[in-house]
Amino acid sequence: MTPPPCSKPILLIALGGNALVRKGQAGTIGEQFENLKLPAAQIARLARDYRIIITHGNGPQVGSLMLQQESCEAVGRLPLEILVAQTQGQIGYMLESTIDQALMALGINDRPLVSLISYVVVDENDPAFDAPSKPVGPVFTAGQAEALPYPVVATRGGFRRVVVSPRPVTIVEKREIRQLMEMDFIVICCGGGGIPVIREGRAFQGVDAVIDKDLVSARLAEEVGVDIFVMATDVPGVALGFGTPQERFLTSLSVDDAARHLLAGDFAAGSMGPKVEAAMQVMAGRGRRAVITAVDRIEAAVKGEAGTEFSLE
Amino acid sequence: MTPPPCSKPILLIALGGNALVRKGQAGTIGEQFENLKLPAAQIARLARDYRIIITHGNGPQVGSLMLQQESCEAVGRLPLEILVAQTQGQIGYMLESTIDQALMALGINDRPLVSLISYVVVDENDPAFDAPSKPVGPVFTAGQAEALPYPVVATRGGFRRVVVSPRPVTIVEKREIRQLMEMDFIVICCGGGGIPVIREGRAFQGVDAVIDKDLVSARLAEEVGVDIFVMATDVPGVALGFGTPQERFLTSLSVDDAARHLLAGDFAAGSMGPKVEAAMQVMAGRGRRAVITAVDRIEAAVKGEAGTEFSLE
Repeated sequence: MTPPPCSKPILLIALGGNALVRKGQAGTIGEQFENLKLPAAQIARLARDYRIIITHGNGPQVGSLMLQQESCEAVGRLPLEILVAQTQGQIGYMLESTIDQALMALGINDRPLVSLISYVVVDENDPAFDAPSKPVGPVFTAGQAEALPYPVVATRGGFRRVVVSPRPVTIVEKREIRQLMEMDFIVICCGGGGIPVIREGRAFQGVDAVIDKDLVSARLAEEVGVDIFVMATDVPGVALGFGTPQERFLTSLSVDDAARHLLAGDFAAGSMGPKVEAAMQVMAGRGRRAVITAVDRIEAAVKGEAGTEFSLE
Repeated sequence: MTPPPCSKPILLIALGGNALVRKGQAGTIGEQFENLKLPAAQIARLARDYRIIITHGNGPQVGSLMLQQESCEAVGRLPLEILVAQTQGQIGYMLESTIDQALMALGINDRPLVSLISYVVVDENDPAFDAPSKPVGPVFTAGQAEALPYPVVATRGGFRRVVVSPRPVTIVEKREIRQLMEMDFIVICCGGGGIPVIREGRAFQGVDAVIDKDLVSARLAEEVGVDIFVMATDVPGVALGFGTPQERFLTSLSVDDAARHLLAGDFAAGSMGPKVEAAMQVMAGRGRRAVITAVDRIEAAVKGEAGTEFSLE
C-alpha cells in the first residue's frame, strides 16, 4: 500500500558557512557538530509542517582539503570536483546525523532523511570559463604561488587560487529529489554548490570549478518546485550601507529594488550579491517566497517574523 | 498517482577495492573512473531485471586521506569517521556518475539513481573495541610510528595504524533504503563499510573504527530483504589452497563446509574470511542467494554461470 504523495509546502533551506564554522573559531569537527545543533533543532521542528530540502556551503572544509593537497607530496593531487564530493560526504554526514538527533529529541523516529551526493551540469560555453574569478582554498606567498599549476590572484592576505564559477544549468538528481519530496523525505543535497560537471553527449566530465551555493539552490527551487526558499547566513538579512554607519537592514525588498541595488553594486560580490540574485530568481516563479535571514532565525523567517522578505512589488 | 511498489528481485552488489584501483596501478582518479566502467556497464544491464543496491570499499581512498592527515601540519586532524564520510562522497560520486553514463548508453534515461551517505551503528561493548586489529592507512618507519597518537602494528612493510573493526549492528538508513527499493531506485550506500557510530540514548557518536564492507553488506541484505547478494572481488571465487599449487576454485560451497573451512582458518582474515562469513549470514535468510565472484563476472554470477555459489546443503 503506497500512501498518496505528500502535499505539505516545500521549504528549501540554504545553510551558509557559519552554520558549521563561526567567526573566530578554529573550525574543529567538535565545533562544527556543536554549531549544527542550532539549525538542526529548527529544521526538526519545521519538518512537522513542511517538506524540507537542505543545501549547504563547504568553504572551510574544501579549503582544508586543498591545503592538504598542496602540502602532501606523498599523495597524488585530486581534481577540485573530487574534493567537493568529499565535502558532500563529510558535511552530509554531519548534517544528517545532527538532524536525526534533533528529530529523535522531538520523538520523531520515522521521518525518512537522506543525504544525497549531487552533481550539477554547467555550460562549457559559460563566459565564466574565460575568467576565473572565485578565490578558493589556502593563502600562499608570492614564492609559493609561482610554483602552483593553476591561476592565482592577489588578495589582501596573499595569493590564492582562482577557479571559474559558472552558473548552474541543471541538477542531475532533480527527478529523484522530486520523487523523494512526494514521499516526505527530508533531503540534504547540492552541498558546496554541487559537484560541477559538463555534459558531453551521454557522458559527464567533472570540471575544476565551484558553483555558487545560493545560485544552485535557486535553480533547485525552480526545478523541484519549492514554495519557500530561506537563505540562512551570518547577518540578519539584506542591508543597505552594509558595514557603514548608515547600515540599515531591510525587512522587505521588492524584486525591482533588488535589481536596482544589485546593478548599482550595493551588495558584495560572492556574498550578499548572489543571495539577492538567487532570491530574485526564485521570486520569478509566481507564488513563491524568498527570505534571507540569520541562521538562528530560520523558524522566525519562515513565519514572516525575521529576515529580509522579497516581494514582487 | 503513485505506482504500486516495485516487485523485481533485489540484487545487492558489494564492489571490492579492485573495482576502483587494480593491482599495479597508481590509482589516479582517471584510472578509477576507467576501472568503474566495467562494473557500471554490468549494473546498468542488470538494472532492467533487478532492483539494485551497490556497496563499495574505500581502502586506497581512505589511506590517501590518512596520509594527508599525517603529513599536513597546517590542517587539524580529522577523526577517522569523517574520513570515511569523505570517501563516501568521493566514491559515491564516481560510481553514480559512471553508472548514470552506462544507463544513458543503454537508452535508459529515467531510472532513479542516488548515492546515500550511510552511517552504521556498532555496539560499544563489542569485544573488538578491546583489540584493535585492522591495519589502515599508510606505512610508517619505526621512528615515525613512535610519534603517532594511536596504536600501531608491525606489518611486513613497516608499521601501520590499527583500528578496531566492530560488527555492524544496524544501518541507520535501512528504512529509507527499503522505501527507495519500493520505488525501484538504484541505491549506492554503505561505502567503506559505513560511517561507524555508537548510539547513546537519542544521540549518535562517531568512533575511530572501520566496519568490514562485506559484513555490513550482509547486515543490509538482512535488514532490507535482498534476494541475491553478489560480492565482486579480484579472484574468480572461493578457493581451497589459495595461492598454493593445489589451489582449486569452487563453483559451489555449502554453508556447513564453509563454516568448517572458516574455523580451520582456510580463508584469509580480512579478505576471503569475512566474505565467506557474510555469505553464510545471508544464506541463513531462507530463499536467498549469495555468490562470490570476480568484478568482470557479476552478470554471469547472477545467472549462476560464474563464481562460488553458496548452498544450504
